[in-house]
Amino acid sequence: MGELLRRWREALEREEPVAVATVVDGPGRGGKLLVTPEEHVGTAGNPDLDRAVVEAARGLLEGGRTEMVHLGPRGQRRMDDVSVFIQSFAPPPRMYVFGAIDFASAVARIGKFLGYRVTVCDARPVFATRERFPTADEVVVAWPDEFIKSAPVDRRTVICVLTHDPKFDVPVLKEALKTEAGYIGAMGSRRTHEKRTARLREEGVTEEELARISSPIGLDIGARTPEETAVAIAAEIIALRTGHPGGRLAERQGPIHARPAEEARR
Amino acid sequence: MGELLRRWREALEREEPVAVATVVDGPGRGGKLLVTPEEHVGTAGNPDLDRAVVEAARGLLEGGRTEMVHLGPRGQRRMDDVSVFIQSFAPPPRMYVFGAIDFASAVARIGKFLGYRVTVCDARPVFATRERFPTADEVVVAWPDEFIKSAPVDRRTVICVLTHDPKFDVPVLKEALKTEAGYIGAMGSRRTHEKRTARLREEGVTEEELARISSPIGLDIGARTPEETAVAIAAEIIALRTGHPGGRLAERQGPIHARPAEEARR
Repeated sequence: MGELLRRWREALEREEPVAVATVVDGPGRGGKLLVTPEEHVGTAGNPDLDRAVVEAARGLLEGGRTEMVHLGPRGQRRMDDVSVFIQSFAPPPRMYVFGAIDFASAVARIGKFLGYRVTVCDARPVFATRERFPTADEVVVAWPDEFIKSAPVDRRTVICVLTHDPKFDVPVLKEALKTEAGYIGAMGSRRTHEKRTARLREEGVTEEELARISSPIGLDIGARTPEETAVAIAAEIIALRTGHPGGRLAERQGPIHARPAEEARR
Repeated sequence: MGELLRRWREALEREEPVAVATVVDGPGRGGKLLVTPEEHVGTAGNPDLDRAVVEAARGLLEGGRTEMVHLGPRGQRRMDDVSVFIQSFAPPPRMYVFGAIDFASAVARIGKFLGYRVTVCDARPVFATRERFPTADEVVVAWPDEFIKSAPVDRRTVICVLTHDPKFDVPVLKEALKTEAGYIGAMGSRRTHEKRTARLREEGVTEEELARISSPIGLDIGARTPEETAVAIAAEIIALRTGHPGGRLAERQGPIHARPAEEARR
């Protein structure tokens, strides 16, 4: 139990997602399991039950949800001998917006709307001001590539590079590709992106790495204003996370919440 | 000029979109043209120039933009003998949200973000309250079908039916289909929508009319939370207006702002 509490405190201090499962009814009542995306500590009673609880906890943790789960004594589904209360402690995912341009304000606003902790970063102090980004959690004056090197990034992190100036873009994208960020989008016309990818290739970035960059950024909805562009970007962030293709639901067959590309989830 | 001023005042009073073009430099200086989506009054000097100015004004009016336009004496593009100042007076487009459910609050918020004048309407006074929809311009307690019958609707109007209860849905959709609304979306699973369309067919709604309903509502991005669903709906509203298919820009060829289906614009 000491180990479990230590890991729990550690995760909370580091703002890492962590779930704690407690057997509240059935054999093994009082058993506790701590579950992170990578490991688990403790036991709910036996290894089979542990496996089922860990799986359930990781599913809930992804959405930051807290729920009562009912299982059989060996973790069987559709049984209810054991009741496990699974509590998620998931810090908000992070969104980094590089380039304090007009579009950045709309992207920061929709980031907050979706529950992100939003940081806007630009090297130019006249643009990266609190007044221009009142809804952002953090406005940082720094070179984007320097900033991203030491910023916390996990698989839920979203990186939007809006500068469309190779001088800023190339170094920050190169650093962003070294992280496990779930989304890396870069604004700019196809021509800008071609120049950018040529420069990134010169810097040794591989084709596989380049394929991680969403550029031109966003879904193809004909967005023109900053707000419309922010909607297009937000929709792409969600679609990539869930492995859905975009396009209209009205034109697709099958249930709405089926996940056509479960393996595309990160 | 008297006719022009009368139409101008009329348009502003009725909150109809109207642009006023004034020749500020070149032959015919001082000439004025009033342009609405349907008609024009006055002249910039000659019929050829008028045609070009009307076309430019309607383009600007669509986005509510005000700009200086340069043309040749007969309206030629890429010439600058004549400078015309075109000022748009476009009232915000309207969004009607029917069904004061939890999802409606997120949809109302993103509607405001995109610049809509948002009305939330529900027959149940306990749900349709100002407290639940602080960002909406208007919260109305009324039967949705009764409300839509007398509400102002034009081609820019967006109607979101979120009730997913055939009792409310069928009558309001039937009335919505009688309007020229640019977007009519209806929430619900495919099964709900099948029941709904069966009922609408019984009420005499044609297949062509049914095809106007976006249901299941929104782009296919795997949205689950109210905020994600609101992003999916907003993205579909924009995509349908511009005639873009959704999907990822990164996976499409050609320039970003080309309009693959100009004729799909309403």
